[in-house]
Amino acid sequence: MRVTVVGLGPGAGRDLTGRAREALEQAELIIGYTAYIELIREEFSHKEMRSTGMRKEVDRCRAAVEEAVAGKDVAMVCSGDSGIYGMAALVYEVAQEYPPIEIEVVPGITAACGGAAVLGAPLTHDFAVVSLSDLLTPWEKIERRLICAAQADFVLCLYNPASHSRPDHLRRACDILLAAGKAPDTVCGFVQNIGREGECAVLTTLAALRDTKVDMFTTVFIGSGQTRVLNGKMVTPRGYLQREN
Amino acid sequence: MRVTVVGLGPGAGRDLTGRAREALEQAELIIGYTAYIELIREEFSHKEMRSTGMRKEVDRCRAAVEEAVAGKDVAMVCSGDSGIYGMAALVYEVAQEYPPIEIEVVPGITAACGGAAVLGAPLTHDFAVVSLSDLLTPWEKIERRLICAAQADFVLCLYNPASHSRPDHLRRACDILLAAGKAPDTVCGFVQNIGREGECAVLTTLAALRDTKVDMFTTVFIGSGQTRVLNGKMVTPRGYLQREN
Repeated sequence: MRVTVVGLGPGAGRDLTGRAREALEQAELIIGYTAYIELIREEFSHKEMRSTGMRKEVDRCRAAVEEAVAGKDVAMVCSGDSGIYGMAALVYEVAQEYPPIEIEVVPGITAACGGAAVLGAPLTHDFAVVSLSDLLTPWEKIERRLICAAQADFVLCLYNPASHSRPDHLRRACDILLAAGKAPDTVCGFVQNIGREGECAVLTTLAALRDTKVDMFTTVFIGSGQTRVLNGKMVTPRGYLQREN
Repeated sequence: MRVTVVGLGPGAGRDLTGRAREALEQAELIIGYTAYIELIREEFSHKEMRSTGMRKEVDRCRAAVEEAVAGKDVAMVCSGDSGIYGMAALVYEVAQEYPPIEIEVVPGITAACGGAAVLGAPLTHDFAVVSLSDLLTPWEKIERRLICAAQADFVLCLYNPASHSRPDHLRRACDILLAAGKAPDTVCGFVQNIGREGECAVLTTLAALRDTKVDMFTTVFIGSGQTRVLNGKMVTPRGYLQREN
């Protein structure tokens, strides 16, 4: 019948939109990665839920589509947004193999927006979002994108900056950006556990970020040439005040 | 006392998060651009509201900060996210001129996420967000960012693609992207009035987008080399299925 791909926002709960909450209330079955199901288990304990482990993305989407083909109203939950590094594209891809079903995508607060709000306002001008995970993307492509982002003077938001199997990706990314001409004192920040227990934000510089260890629950922000620290916050002015003066 | 900068999402109402709704409920005074105040006027009719016209951004933020300095709990509302092309940075900047106040930023669904959900899943891999407005940014900088985004093979999301005073910016942007090597048949899409009355999504190609007129309530998406049309939707695969096969 239908799969609704629902973005929960960084921490679910108060980060859920009204539309996301309605979609979860309406669903007969909620499917998702174990850690994301845990975020909503208490609030939606009256719902049938099915969780699958890490790296089981294709199985998870097939299960959702098969249940919908069989007539169920299914919600597939994603942390953050349902699109940005979420399951929406894969649900559309997998659905090609099955009889037609209805697919709806309900957006959520992605880590770029959630983390930016904690740090201040780093994304108030043009920016790029890049994942440092090379599980699905050749490292050469990631490297090229980092170089182009530096040349464009975009603010840069990095998802998946590290994991157990790639502890040095953030260091490599910083070195690429420095070599591409970003200043070592570029204002940077990172946020761990956005919207969840243990939320923690740190302001730093690109030179210092290079030697910082972060975990997979961290989102990293690297400023443009305009990004400043104002009163302990990371701020990229859009230029309103500068026009006035 | 405090300014909370609140992102309403594309259409307010069901797009509001729980945190955004709480912040508006808690505020004693809600300030914003006239059109955004209208989005919430009915639901929050019991609140004191003050709206200011277009291009009055600095005045609006000064008013919010001054009311907070005088002891009020003020919410400054923005359409979409509070950070991305929103008022969060300007509130931090303006607050520098006044005695210390508390500033909080509550994120919202930005047009990139809201529009992507309507089109399908165009932002499931690395992307860049660029505003085509040259009111505050020299056109040369916008042009350089577009060229770099093309070279990086980012999916590109364009805010402010047109206005009365710059009706040809989208055409110019498409020409820049084509000259930088983007294929004329690159999958593109745009959404008008995301989450509001008259919401309307169109799929097209880069060559055709060049000759398309859009208005200022439109968000434009230009695919990467991986972006496809699947069942009438704009989808950028992340690579899960490709890894499996």
